[in-house]
Amino acid sequence: MRKIVLFSCIYFGFLHVASAQVNDSIIFKTIADNILLHGTAYSNLEYICKKIGPRLSGSSQMVKAEQETARMLREMGADTVYLQEMKVPHWVRGEKETAYLNMPDGKKRSLNICALGNSVGTGKKGITAMVVEVHSYEELDALGEKAIKGKIVYLDVRLNPTYLLTDRAYSEISHFRWNGASRAAKYGAVAFVIRSLASNTDDFPHTGGMGYNDSFPKIPALAVSTRDGDFISATIKNNKDVALFVRNTSTSLPLATGHNVIAEIRGSGMPDEIITIGGHLDSWDLAEGAQDDGAGCVQSMELVRVFKKSGIRPKRTIRVVLFTDEENSGAGGIKYAEFAKAENKRHLFAIESDAGGFVPRGFDFVITKERLEKLRSWLLLFEPYGIHRMGQGEPGADVDYLRPMGFTLSQLAPDSQRYFDYHHTAQDSFAAVSKRELEFGAIVMAQLVYMIDKYGL
Amino acid sequence: MRKIVLFSCIYFGFLHVASAQVNDSIIFKTIADNILLHGTAYSNLEYICKKIGPRLSGSSQMVKAEQETARMLREMGADTVYLQEMKVPHWVRGEKETAYLNMPDGKKRSLNICALGNSVGTGKKGITAMVVEVHSYEELDALGEKAIKGKIVYLDVRLNPTYLLTDRAYSEISHFRWNGASRAAKYGAVAFVIRSLASNTDDFPHTGGMGYNDSFPKIPALAVSTRDGDFISATIKNNKDVALFVRNTSTSLPLATGHNVIAEIRGSGMPDEIITIGGHLDSWDLAEGAQDDGAGCVQSMELVRVFKKSGIRPKRTIRVVLFTDEENSGAGGIKYAEFAKAENKRHLFAIESDAGGFVPRGFDFVITKERLEKLRSWLLLFEPYGIHRMGQGEPGADVDYLRPMGFTLSQLAPDSQRYFDYHHTAQDSFAAVSKRELEFGAIVMAQLVYMIDKYGL
Repeated sequence: MRKIVLFSCIYFGFLHVASAQVNDSIIFKTIADNILLHGTAYSNLEYICKKIGPRLSGSSQMVKAEQETARMLREMGADTVYLQEMKVPHWVRGEKETAYLNMPDGKKRSLNICALGNSVGTGKKGITAMVVEVHSYEELDALGEKAIKGKIVYLDVRLNPTYLLTDRAYSEISHFRWNGASRAAKYGAVAFVIRSLASNTDDFPHTGGMGYNDSFPKIPALAVSTRDGDFISATIKNNKDVALFVRNTSTSLPLATGHNVIAEIRGSGMPDEIITIGGHLDSWDLAEGAQDDGAGCVQSMELVRVFKKSGIRPKRTIRVVLFTDEENSGAGGIKYAEFAKAENKRHLFAIESDAGGFVPRGFDFVITKERLEKLRSWLLLFEPYGIHRMGQGEPGADVDYLRPMGFTLSQLAPDSQRYFDYHHTAQDSFAAVSKRELEFGAIVMAQLVYMIDKYGL
Repeated sequence: MRKIVLFSCIYFGFLHVASAQVNDSIIFKTIADNILLHGTAYSNLEYICKKIGPRLSGSSQMVKAEQETARMLREMGADTVYLQEMKVPHWVRGEKETAYLNMPDGKKRSLNICALGNSVGTGKKGITAMVVEVHSYEELDALGEKAIKGKIVYLDVRLNPTYLLTDRAYSEISHFRWNGASRAAKYGAVAFVIRSLASNTDDFPHTGGMGYNDSFPKIPALAVSTRDGDFISATIKNNKDVALFVRNTSTSLPLATGHNVIAEIRGSGMPDEIITIGGHLDSWDLAEGAQDDGAGCVQSMELVRVFKKSGIRPKRTIRVVLFTDEENSGAGGIKYAEFAKAENKRHLFAIESDAGGFVPRGFDFVITKERLEKLRSWLLLFEPYGIHRMGQGEPGADVDYLRPMGFTLSQLAPDSQRYFDYHHTAQDSFAAVSKRELEFGAIVMAQLVYMIDKYGL
């Protein structure tokens, strides 16, 4: 008899699990159908890209984007929408940058170049100096002041193409863009030029954040397009002394005011438990910031619309956060982390989409082993929607500021193959986003939030 | 003792399997690294798209493409390269098509339109007639001759956006493009216009093959862009009688000569066992045929290069086939199937890549259950390269002609979300192909062929 009871328990236990999965699978399909048929992520992204445009912190477009996305979130039926104020950097690019190589035949060969974010300018007259090419800090250190002083350092470092995920390749070298100028200035360089951190070869320079080490002079820092970087290398290879001219008038203005845009669906049972989902609303100034990160914003916003329209009433409070100033100093993420620490609420989970609006393939987590196992037990539900990967990984940069509080964090992991073709360039435009790929990112994030709200962590 | 022996067997059996997997994993990585570092698929595709261009069967570009890809395959080190001759259709589009609606205010509203492949022309003067909109054959049949005679039928059928794979949605409705004109002609329609079979809304009409039922008059068949199709619907909705003008001068010329391009790596141990891998070299005439199917050709060709360069010597004969005339009448696939049936060799496996050069997600097979289980036991090796799906499905259209012989068939299954944005339009250009996405397709096909050659089926 005992055996039979045990069997029944297993049997009904199985039925219970199976039936829960079937019910959840139906909600998954409801979310997917609603977004694929009636989704507004794509049209909202078009608005943000085309009616507003580039949204660097401190710019008037960023202010407009805050107002317009707050309006969209209200129209979607969010229970509360509010702005979280802070001071943000206000760097401006100035006039379009120019650069050329003085070729041995006396001609000038112009280069596609842009200043890195936060770079100082060259002055109106620009800078002309001999160019020294290096491929690592070891090479720079070995050359030292004797070879570097008074020169322009050209750093050629590349994303490793054999890595299967381009974000891994990018993460490995992005510190060169951030720190390279001061490393070169240490030896007396007068300017720093980096080959764009890109996965392809073309004519579009990639900007991105940089910072200065106060121990050394602040020198202009610029990125040259990959094709023109290769041209610099080829020219240096065949000629001993090559002079490079660079000119940028970028400058940092006094701090400006910026805001995170926050919208909430109030939890019906446990309103003081918080699940955060977001992207960053600011972008670099060269393009429309479609993949980086208009996509993550409109995908996160879509959760409010689809939950309301589908009658999904979460137990916990779902908070959509559109962070400001991810690109320049991280002020939005830092501010939200301070806020989360101060409020007397339990933060269950926070996810960010900031790796492009490409077709989703998985989720990366900062999570305990036990909780990850729980999430992975849901994989079967996600697989029809293209999600096969759930593992430890890096969270989005904004939610990463929540890590010291021990929160469970995540980032949507879309397919990474195309991201660093567009990243931080003039090519990061609405036209490069696929409606359906974007929508699938919105779908799987809403599905994941639904599950975590329902079953906890 | 017996127990211990059994345990040892399991233990060493496991070690044997594990060690085979490790060795294969190393070959997988060798193939991937070689293609990601030294691959020529992308530059070969650029050549085919930019130096040759559209390659409709019967066109001079198709002849050039046969010669140039044969040259490339020889240069890659194929042991044999030969052309397989046949007769192919030679349809020509003629002058650029024109169409407009006669609006109630007396103005003409021009429409983006193109003739479907094999369509007859309207005559130089074009055709003006009232337009009748239908959404199904049932609706057409219900309207009958009384409502249709002397009119232009406009058919609005759509890819179901809630399907997770767009190819499933396309397959469900592509017969409307193929048969719609004769279905309308049955009731006396004077022309047939279909809303483009597309997954997005834009201004680019999608061409594609059509055929006539000889029982009914041959009437011109055209596709209007999705946006302009929606405009036709909106205009009809608000106005009772709307006249549409269409003009195309397309015509079918006498049959031309075409060729499949075939390259072989001769098997070192079992040369009379054949593994076929291919794509189709012909394309529609509106664009460069980059995703459809230059991509599948250069991915297949890449196998020759990477096997030779990596020192992989297959036991079986690997045959790369670039089929001709997939788009228009399937002559290339039919010819190859006749050849395969006639030659006294064992065809182990045939795979085609004809669903775009997007990031691969799986393989679809026509295969026995036992063989599929064997392939699925290799999934762990493929997962790092993004392959999670191996199941029964449709093979490529050209290798599908091998089905009556009971061969095991397959198609590479890249991510399908973007394919029907470009398919058969002027947008199917080299610029829309990602180098890394294309390369991953080449990688996983070479890996699969390596495994099937090594372990059999």
